[in-house]
Amino acid sequence: MNEWHIAEGFRFAGVVIGLRSEPDRRDLAVIASDRPATAAGVFTQNRVCAAPVQLSRERLPRSDARAIVICSGNANACTGEQGLTDARRMAELVAADVGCSAEQVLVASTGVIGRPLPMAILEAGIPKATAVLQPGAAAFNDAAHAILTTDTRIKVSTRTLDSYSITGFAKGAAMIGPNMATMLGFLFTDAAVDADDLHAILRRCTADTFNCISVEGHTSTNDTVLILANGAGPKLAGAALDRFERSIHAVCEELARAIAEDAEGAQHLITIDVEGCRTDAEARTIAKAIAESALVKTAVFGADPNWGRVVSAAGYCGVDFDERDLSLWMGSFLLYERGAPLPFDAKLASAYLRDNRNVGFRVKLELGSGRCRFYTCDLTTEYVNLNADYTT
Amino acid sequence: MNEWHIAEGFRFAGVVIGLRSEPDRRDLAVIASDRPATAAGVFTQNRVCAAPVQLSRERLPRSDARAIVICSGNANACTGEQGLTDARRMAELVAADVGCSAEQVLVASTGVIGRPLPMAILEAGIPKATAVLQPGAAAFNDAAHAILTTDTRIKVSTRTLDSYSITGFAKGAAMIGPNMATMLGFLFTDAAVDADDLHAILRRCTADTFNCISVEGHTSTNDTVLILANGAGPKLAGAALDRFERSIHAVCEELARAIAEDAEGAQHLITIDVEGCRTDAEARTIAKAIAESALVKTAVFGADPNWGRVVSAAGYCGVDFDERDLSLWMGSFLLYERGAPLPFDAKLASAYLRDNRNVGFRVKLELGSGRCRFYTCDLTTEYVNLNADYTT
Repeated sequence: MNEWHIAEGFRFAGVVIGLRSEPDRRDLAVIASDRPATAAGVFTQNRVCAAPVQLSRERLPRSDARAIVICSGNANACTGEQGLTDARRMAELVAADVGCSAEQVLVASTGVIGRPLPMAILEAGIPKATAVLQPGAAAFNDAAHAILTTDTRIKVSTRTLDSYSITGFAKGAAMIGPNMATMLGFLFTDAAVDADDLHAILRRCTADTFNCISVEGHTSTNDTVLILANGAGPKLAGAALDRFERSIHAVCEELARAIAEDAEGAQHLITIDVEGCRTDAEARTIAKAIAESALVKTAVFGADPNWGRVVSAAGYCGVDFDERDLSLWMGSFLLYERGAPLPFDAKLASAYLRDNRNVGFRVKLELGSGRCRFYTCDLTTEYVNLNADYTT
Repeated sequence: MNEWHIAEGFRFAGVVIGLRSEPDRRDLAVIASDRPATAAGVFTQNRVCAAPVQLSRERLPRSDARAIVICSGNANACTGEQGLTDARRMAELVAADVGCSAEQVLVASTGVIGRPLPMAILEAGIPKATAVLQPGAAAFNDAAHAILTTDTRIKVSTRTLDSYSITGFAKGAAMIGPNMATMLGFLFTDAAVDADDLHAILRRCTADTFNCISVEGHTSTNDTVLILANGAGPKLAGAALDRFERSIHAVCEELARAIAEDAEGAQHLITIDVEGCRTDAEARTIAKAIAESALVKTAVFGADPNWGRVVSAAGYCGVDFDERDLSLWMGSFLLYERGAPLPFDAKLASAYLRDNRNVGFRVKLELGSGRCRFYTCDLTTEYVNLNADYTT
């Protein structure tokens, strides 16, 4: 906690209001900016999107955002018109306490789909959060905890550059499919960045970070990544803006990787590197198919070097290639070279999977310079047990 | 066994040759037609396809097929040039014993990917099979057993019509994704059907049967469905041909459903009905996304009526719709009606999932008359355990 760099001018709160069945779990976070902040967001591409996603999407980008409110335990998704009314009310309650208009407040939610928000709990609970808004690491830590669902730990990434800081936190442990899934991410900076620049930077930085992780490929209704920049100083431009973008990218990458690492029941973080494709997009399609194959993921869980599952997953993803152009490494083991299987020590290969928490596959084609790095996790019996009994 | 209708003029064998680690498991099947048969096939759409698929595909359609040889335990996939040489050699060995040219023999394989075929075992084993070729149900039963891998039972579907019979068998329990996966199916008839008609009928009949089942969505390298028609009588045409096609469709549907029912570790057969789409193809895309969602499948395993996972899976599949046009039933429970959640008795809904081996979801949109029925199974801890330790 001492090492976190907390952007100036933001206050945080994370409190227990009773949305969750565990009585002591923090379940509501509020983040307020002392001054109007430029703000941008990227959201789920699911056609069925939650009320808070609809609300926040229509309010962004903007130059005068003042707060974000996030509830955990109820997604406010598939809740019809009532869901939109309830999300708007959450923003109004925060606005009244922070002293701004409701439109300056953004909303995010995560949890069970299809249940109306228990508004009595939120009416009573939101003022509890706004009453304890504080700057600094302790309050930030509370907020980072309050957005978790089945996560086993908070995900935080921060940086300090010349004259400003970037402070990010995220949650997500399942329903994680590319194009995000119940994955929430929030970034704050006291740098001054134009709203349009902020939006463009956030889109670019999420494309190969939050959009290149998968737990089970189920894109959520609630994915949201928001960024607020409240700097009062001169706007970043030129080389300073480029440097800002690289740092935002690093924060997004660190948070995305932390989500894949903490996936429900996961025992391995699996890094899929695909290179030598015609385009980056084709490389991503191949990497995504491998990352989402239940057979690849169970093989890693079982420390079974059943590499044919990796090659065959590449083969069914729709990218055109000849298997004689494909080579595959698992860690440092070259298993398949330009369409021909190589002898390998199955015991050593199995030990590689068993003894390393982070394992990697590398697929190389001979078609160009397109590449992608994708993160996923293994599929374990614990994942199945966790998800067999989530709502009931 | 007594009820099976075995097409005339075919002989069957299923023997133990030692490809599998279990010493008493039948692992090689040969089926021979006494006279040249018209033959057609449909195959995996995986870019990485096994040597026997490449071989059989280039030999079809044809009018003089005489035999099929199938080995179980080794897929002969990702085996390079040697794999093709080995598949050709399997056909040659059968041809020598049956008394035909190697081109008249089709080959299929299923099992582990990426290991060279142990040809010494096949050189010694194939003559053992051809030596015991017999007509009738007992030999057919042996062949149906010899193609199994992790299946717990054989899959057989037969019909007798006016003057001919249709005899089908299949295998498949995992690596089942639409467009088939390690799914093998073989159909035999003593009807006389033109090779081009046979090919067209097989393509149409597999499109909404074998191509509408999924275990985990991992399309195999080895999927093969072959049909042989050896009738010496007049060719079927007109209404008789239509009736033949309806029967082939029924056999394919019965076999496909049996595969989904016997999927690895499955405790439920899940039927997904999607209707009211603009096209059948869009309905299939929605049904496939629901069928392949690990979160939907674990919820059914856990008897958890977490219906938001079904609606959200429909939402991320890429078909454009407004959730206010979507309604969802689980069995007879209407859970979500045109974008709004309905109250339901969670205990009764959970009991429906717990107490029925066959359960169903029905998704209705308001966009047209496109529809699809898709079969899948639940995702269980047993599936994960089975697949965590398959090769090692």
